[in-house]
Amino acid sequence: MTMHRYRSHTCAALRKSDVGSNVRISGWVHRVRDHGGVLFIDLRDHYGMTQVVADPDSPAFKMAETVRGEWVIRIDGKVKARSEDTVNKGMATGEIELYATEIEVLSTAKELPLPVFGEPDYPEDVRLKYRFLDLRRETLHKNIVKRTQVITEMRNQMSAAGFGEYTTPILTASSPEGARDFLVPSRIHPGKFFALPQAPQQYKQLLMVAGFDRYFQIAPCFRDEDPRADRLPGEFYQLDVEMSFVTQEDIWSTMQPIMTSVFEKFAEGKPVTKDWPRIPYDVSIRKYGTDKPDLRNPIEMQAVTDHFAGSGFKVFANMIASNPKVEVWAIPAKTGGSRAFCDRMNAWAQSLGQPGLGYIFWRKENDVLEGAGPLAKNIGPERTAAIAEQLGLGDGDACFFVAGEPEKFYKFAGEARTRAGEELNLVDRDRFELCWIVDFPFYEYNEEDKKVDFSHNPFSMPQGGLDALENQDPLTIKAYQYDAVCNGFEIASGSIRNQSPETMVKAFEIAGLSKEDVEERFGGMYRAFQYGAPPHGGCAFGIDRVIMLLVGAKNLREITLFPMNQQAQDLLMNAPAPASPKQLMELELRVMPKKKEA
Amino acid sequence: MTMHRYRSHTCAALRKSDVGSNVRISGWVHRVRDHGGVLFIDLRDHYGMTQVVADPDSPAFKMAETVRGEWVIRIDGKVKARSEDTVNKGMATGEIELYATEIEVLSTAKELPLPVFGEPDYPEDVRLKYRFLDLRRETLHKNIVKRTQVITEMRNQMSAAGFGEYTTPILTASSPEGARDFLVPSRIHPGKFFALPQAPQQYKQLLMVAGFDRYFQIAPCFRDEDPRADRLPGEFYQLDVEMSFVTQEDIWSTMQPIMTSVFEKFAEGKPVTKDWPRIPYDVSIRKYGTDKPDLRNPIEMQAVTDHFAGSGFKVFANMIASNPKVEVWAIPAKTGGSRAFCDRMNAWAQSLGQPGLGYIFWRKENDVLEGAGPLAKNIGPERTAAIAEQLGLGDGDACFFVAGEPEKFYKFAGEARTRAGEELNLVDRDRFELCWIVDFPFYEYNEEDKKVDFSHNPFSMPQGGLDALENQDPLTIKAYQYDAVCNGFEIASGSIRNQSPETMVKAFEIAGLSKEDVEERFGGMYRAFQYGAPPHGGCAFGIDRVIMLLVGAKNLREITLFPMNQQAQDLLMNAPAPASPKQLMELELRVMPKKKEA
Repeated sequence: MTMHRYRSHTCAALRKSDVGSNVRISGWVHRVRDHGGVLFIDLRDHYGMTQVVADPDSPAFKMAETVRGEWVIRIDGKVKARSEDTVNKGMATGEIELYATEIEVLSTAKELPLPVFGEPDYPEDVRLKYRFLDLRRETLHKNIVKRTQVITEMRNQMSAAGFGEYTTPILTASSPEGARDFLVPSRIHPGKFFALPQAPQQYKQLLMVAGFDRYFQIAPCFRDEDPRADRLPGEFYQLDVEMSFVTQEDIWSTMQPIMTSVFEKFAEGKPVTKDWPRIPYDVSIRKYGTDKPDLRNPIEMQAVTDHFAGSGFKVFANMIASNPKVEVWAIPAKTGGSRAFCDRMNAWAQSLGQPGLGYIFWRKENDVLEGAGPLAKNIGPERTAAIAEQLGLGDGDACFFVAGEPEKFYKFAGEARTRAGEELNLVDRDRFELCWIVDFPFYEYNEEDKKVDFSHNPFSMPQGGLDALENQDPLTIKAYQYDAVCNGFEIASGSIRNQSPETMVKAFEIAGLSKEDVEERFGGMYRAFQYGAPPHGGCAFGIDRVIMLLVGAKNLREITLFPMNQQAQDLLMNAPAPASPKQLMELELRVMPKKKEA
Repeated sequence: MTMHRYRSHTCAALRKSDVGSNVRISGWVHRVRDHGGVLFIDLRDHYGMTQVVADPDSPAFKMAETVRGEWVIRIDGKVKARSEDTVNKGMATGEIELYATEIEVLSTAKELPLPVFGEPDYPEDVRLKYRFLDLRRETLHKNIVKRTQVITEMRNQMSAAGFGEYTTPILTASSPEGARDFLVPSRIHPGKFFALPQAPQQYKQLLMVAGFDRYFQIAPCFRDEDPRADRLPGEFYQLDVEMSFVTQEDIWSTMQPIMTSVFEKFAEGKPVTKDWPRIPYDVSIRKYGTDKPDLRNPIEMQAVTDHFAGSGFKVFANMIASNPKVEVWAIPAKTGGSRAFCDRMNAWAQSLGQPGLGYIFWRKENDVLEGAGPLAKNIGPERTAAIAEQLGLGDGDACFFVAGEPEKFYKFAGEARTRAGEELNLVDRDRFELCWIVDFPFYEYNEEDKKVDFSHNPFSMPQGGLDALENQDPLTIKAYQYDAVCNGFEIASGSIRNQSPETMVKAFEIAGLSKEDVEERFGGMYRAFQYGAPPHGGCAFGIDRVIMLLVGAKNLREITLFPMNQQAQDLLMNAPAPASPKQLMELELRVMPKKKEA
């Protein structure tokens, strides 16, 4: 039998049962060691690693002496069992080694600008310029493979649930809402521009109007935003979903088991929430101080305004008396009942510019539970005990208090909750806690422009429909709008859409846009809704975020194949770059540098 | 049990076994008929159609009288069996009808600019502007669904074969080879531009250098070319494939069963080639006059130069005598043996500007086979009989002859082969004939620039490697380069890549590019090859073409969701459009219209 030109086995394939076989493997030289004149080569490919041995008796020895790290070589040899004491149980091929009889160099390597073996930390720009070396490193290689597997699993699950994957255009129209577009000049219509889609929102809704019923897409999205640590410049991917003839219950009950199973498949045994709590937006703000709660943190805030109203703690009591909007929220901190911890929290609050963080902590003296700290003294033992009872706190626990108008302090209160949970190690890091945040407000008040704006997606259906828009205070209207949240990160957003042209016009009117504006800006969709539009809704899961959570990465670069750097440059391909005069002439464009200030 | 808000069943679900049930369906009013005061509504959704009945006794009758085509309605009713004579066997729900008890209008429709029912022909611009209506039409809707299914099947097959789907960047560098790029101005680096990828060629090769072994991608590709009937402006998709440690045999034996099974799955019973012939490029040109042969056409050309050399047909004999490159090719045409047909072929050739198309046809006179026509007379019966014997022709057959230097006439000869096959109905249209065309020439002579150019992919490995480049006439060098062809259309192209930096520089040098050019234009890849590059190769299948073949569409618009028109405009979304002054200012660009000629 003739041997394959490059390999009879991958570098992960050989087992004890292959001992005695003559085989051929190819791969990269991971490392070469010389043990008393015997050479050991760890040969690596995509699948794994095999230990190769060459001693001076081997006809391959001379060649083995010349090979260096990251050379690509082919090795023929005989599989041998390792001796008991050299078996490596941590390695799939750890029971054997390959005794080399022939080595062919397929490609040499110059001195490495970035070592592969051992994965030492290296500056970002070197990693990105030599990304093809960086990607050989074990952790990044594994992350990227996992990324492809997660996406394949999403696709399989969506197909199994009866969804078709419809690909929407990448060269499309500028979307005047939302973030900044990337523009693409048209050569055939010079002076005009396409835009890359910020999301396929309008197209997926048009697909519903066209009758396709269940759409999904692993959709590339483009936003020309300034780079941030958790946001790469340029493109990102979302699992985009839309369904017809559905209520929001249908979206939740469809996507929840799919995403749960995707998480479970790649969670490496960590528990994953199966029955996602559905938490109204208002409740989430009050309990967690955020609409992206980390439910691994068991702390739930509660209002304790009554306990401070008319109390001896005059700062709070006076605030409550003078403004009916004022509330006092409690952040219970089990096991936090030491003055040292409470003072540390107080100092942290002050470091954020807060006046401080009032607290009570409880301890038992002679079997009697006693509140300690200045607040407890001020409000007296009865109120202190009532607070402990309401929050279920006891010996060794603490509680922090924030007072004022909730809309002004809730974010800080949420941060204090997070900090207390983390400092006290109350957060179980090894799990994935998922939930839906539902009933988002439809509008919000824009203080800057002194007007009502959409708080999220302007295409969402307001709860109560046209009637609510016509008769209700806009700022009290909820939308059929929801997010999915995992461990404190928003992983999806969605809504039931407003598919009635009349309701759409009214909704935009409240946000200050005329019917003509709607026609001009969303003409395709607005027109479509006038020719038989089904009730529909959907959501979009942020794929990059889901994968970061699953692999435990803190930076998008660790889960992205060929990312740009923080200056929005592709160092590997050298982009962006100047265009040729011919290209600019064809596009009828001229580069006109702004005058820089002196 | 409460009923779902919109449907208990889809419009394709109800069967005889549901008779007597109270159900709810939603969908579009496909058509309304009034049969003597009884109203029949065909209700349509993504899945199918259900016939709904309302008579004047029904509480839904009044509402049923108001509904019009393409309104979206919800209908509650009772499932009834149809009478024997009204059963529709052509319809999945044809044994039942739904007796309506309640109708809710979910969305009305204005007067339709484009009818859905009956699918009458309509102008392109109306279809594209109202694409959401066009897409509801049965044929297009089915084509699009099939498109999604074909792509899903490709993905599943590739995954099952051990490939990972790696997504490569869409914002990347301009590629100076090949077609025209779409440019994307960078805001953060004004005056510089990204480009959309014409294909992920360099990235997929970099993935191999990074050790990923088996890559595929349903890859969006972008070329700013002028629109043609078989090429939409803007974007298209390919099944992009790359493998490491392979020879071209591995690519063929991997992709052939995958694509065969994709074709078989969607061929609706039409036969599909399982064992694709591997036809060397030179052979294909000689047999079929093209490198994209339609193998459903059984005609194979042969050289018959010797039979005309020194013969009485002086036109050919003199050409042969005066130029050793001259050949005479025969195009055998079984069943074409009538003067009328031969004269028609001759007239067709003249209409293309050819001097004519010489022919012989054979008939039996008194059981003796006799060649007829002026050529037969000129060369005499012996030579005529020898030609018939060489080509296996007999009574009732014809043969056409083309003479000259093959490289100048082969295309015309190929067209004559196609025309003869089609005119004589020798082509079996109901099958998919697949083959590989292999051993493409590496270089070709560019008459215009009087220089040697790459004939296909400059990144391919020349057969014979560096040695061939250094010692062989470049125009005789073959490449490890191949196409896949189906029914006369190229459906894929691929090659084993040139992964040696030294060979790469030499290959480009022959095409007139210096080492510095290579470094500047393909820096990412050229650099990568110097750090351990595995032997690798791959191919890319044109997804749009495969789907056009499978659904029998002649125009890309019939298999594309939201195509642009022939003027490269998206009429639905109104793109391209002028950019705002603010956008242009941020990009530091100014539109400078060329002076139009008076």
